[in-house]
Amino acid sequence: MSSCEFESLEKCLETHLPEAELSEVKRILFGKETKKLDLPAAAVSAASERDFELQGFGFEASPEQLRPARRTRVGLIQNQIVLPTDAPILDQITAMHSRVGEMVEVAAMCGVNIVCFQETWTMPFAFCTREKEPWTEFAESAEEGNTTRFCQELAKKYNMVIISPILERDARHSTLWNTAVVISNTGNVLGKTRKNHIPRIGDFNESTYYMEGDSGHTVFQTQFGNIAVNICYGRHHPLNWFMFSMNGAEIIFNPSATVGALSEPMWSIEARNAAIANHCFTCAINRVGTETFKSEFTSGDGKKAHHDFGHFYGSSYVSAPDGSRSPGLSRTRDGLLVVEMDLNLNRQISDKWSFKMTGRYPEYAEELTEAVKHDFKPKVVKE
Amino acid sequence: MSSCEFESLEKCLETHLPEAELSEVKRILFGKETKKLDLPAAAVSAASERDFELQGFGFEASPEQLRPARRTRVGLIQNQIVLPTDAPILDQITAMHSRVGEMVEVAAMCGVNIVCFQETWTMPFAFCTREKEPWTEFAESAEEGNTTRFCQELAKKYNMVIISPILERDARHSTLWNTAVVISNTGNVLGKTRKNHIPRIGDFNESTYYMEGDSGHTVFQTQFGNIAVNICYGRHHPLNWFMFSMNGAEIIFNPSATVGALSEPMWSIEARNAAIANHCFTCAINRVGTETFKSEFTSGDGKKAHHDFGHFYGSSYVSAPDGSRSPGLSRTRDGLLVVEMDLNLNRQISDKWSFKMTGRYPEYAEELTEAVKHDFKPKVVKE
Repeated sequence: MSSCEFESLEKCLETHLPEAELSEVKRILFGKETKKLDLPAAAVSAASERDFELQGFGFEASPEQLRPARRTRVGLIQNQIVLPTDAPILDQITAMHSRVGEMVEVAAMCGVNIVCFQETWTMPFAFCTREKEPWTEFAESAEEGNTTRFCQELAKKYNMVIISPILERDARHSTLWNTAVVISNTGNVLGKTRKNHIPRIGDFNESTYYMEGDSGHTVFQTQFGNIAVNICYGRHHPLNWFMFSMNGAEIIFNPSATVGALSEPMWSIEARNAAIANHCFTCAINRVGTETFKSEFTSGDGKKAHHDFGHFYGSSYVSAPDGSRSPGLSRTRDGLLVVEMDLNLNRQISDKWSFKMTGRYPEYAEELTEAVKHDFKPKVVKE
Repeated sequence: MSSCEFESLEKCLETHLPEAELSEVKRILFGKETKKLDLPAAAVSAASERDFELQGFGFEASPEQLRPARRTRVGLIQNQIVLPTDAPILDQITAMHSRVGEMVEVAAMCGVNIVCFQETWTMPFAFCTREKEPWTEFAESAEEGNTTRFCQELAKKYNMVIISPILERDARHSTLWNTAVVISNTGNVLGKTRKNHIPRIGDFNESTYYMEGDSGHTVFQTQFGNIAVNICYGRHHPLNWFMFSMNGAEIIFNPSATVGALSEPMWSIEARNAAIANHCFTCAINRVGTETFKSEFTSGDGKKAHHDFGHFYGSSYVSAPDGSRSPGLSRTRDGLLVVEMDLNLNRQISDKWSFKMTGRYPEYAEELTEAVKHDFKPKVVKE
């Protein structure tokens, strides 16, 4: 399926546009050019051997007199599932651990400080089937599950913060959640954050499996920057990004699972708008490939039952607060995107553009409080 | 100056990309293709004689059983100033009336129902100079000024709603405002809306001239749809778009004045994100050309004093709630963009994506109310 998919917007432009025009097109589409990172040859060859794309880019900030640069390297991993969806569950999980583990090893060679995997990374995105079995068996404890333990080992081994989005089983409360576990580079579980907004669209009524998150807008202070995780559908909600930013997030990760026909033209817009509007970095990660299920299912669109629900188009990218963005990973292949960012850029851009100072938030707090009331009267002028 | 400017992203892609790839690139960049409108030959030739670009596109919605289609045509006008900035003020205003008047005539030939002009359309965007004289002389009464009277005549003549963004003098309160006057197709002044967020960046500290607007998020009910006006810098503030939407806006216009080096990579992102996030149409309008001033001025960037502050890059466009957008007008020429939209699309997309239902607004009202307090404690987890 993937082989007939269009590979990448960026590559297409680079192949066909004359140089002078290419640079204008890139400036208009992507903003100030991100410099290419010089990645170690060993990493480049390991990625090639392991058959995944490896790209590296850097966002720079101005030097300051009173603060040293605060350079952080993030790694975004997008990948296909490894085994068929009807393979034994433990085999599927183990195969994903192994695949992502070998990609994290390359991230470590590239000096990555914080790595984020795609949404519910240990499993196929099976929520389209609406079957509870066997998919809920993929759920694990955020604090003590095998996947968390696996990530803790990686974190310690590579001195890396790991964001591990999984299907969480909270046995104490008999609930399932769509959760990102944040593991410190010391190997400790720093905490978790649950998906705040749950889609009810097309194949995705995920509230069949889990409800809206109850963890608010937690920010995690790490040695490499203050981070937050806005899971998937939360990227459509500007207030979600905004509240993570108000709580001090310098980098907001958006691990996702979304397919072409549904969302692709929005993909390059939403996380980037959030970086601009909130003076922070955002990292959008989408899985890649087509996942086929044994049982057929319908999609509430009048069409025939089918066994897959489309192509996850990858295209993971990073946006900076100055409106620029990195190129995206491909639409078709596993990939690791390494991005170095100087976090000083956030405050520099905030001091330049001042959206937080010009935001009039106290007035919006009042207006929004009024607007959610049952007897809210919209302010409409009629002739 | 304009002649060496890059003309248009869209034209460049169409010139150089092979057809199959062009269609994938357009789908990823612009979403579902907007159909070209068949505009009357008389309009096309009038636009050509009057030396401005004329483009027409249409966004369609699905047919419904209980509601007829609600098709509206909007017109976006972008233009250069006509006379030099040191010409007599009344001559400058009259020349702008005349130029925009002849463009509106073509809009009428194209069946436009609602037309919107660029920010402070009767004058050069002189706020970079920080001189009060003579620029404040361009200010007029929103209700009774010559420009409003001029627009009332046009509105009646062409049965067209007119959004006329001007520098407003409120003589009763001895204040100036950056204001959009909304004139009904009957010729009545429906009301006005004032710029909610005032930039303080680079050449634009507009609070030298006018302060944050006091008109909230008014929506105007017209025969052709419920409209609102988010003036210029308000496009950087997602909450601003959001509150217009909460008050029922179906189309939000964003008359702007912004230059390449500052904002161009953000231009295609922000209004479009707002259309997606709020299930409505948004119309982004930027002036075009370079404006030269007699007195030199500095820009707070360590550089030498100069007489202009860059190229206004036009590129006016319309975004739809389904994530698609029209091509933009050129970066260099006066232009009229005619866009037909079926307003039924808003509710259809809202019913599909359900951002308003999944938005958890009561919780954000509480969180925001807390966040703006002086003793707000960000929710940060530390190791």
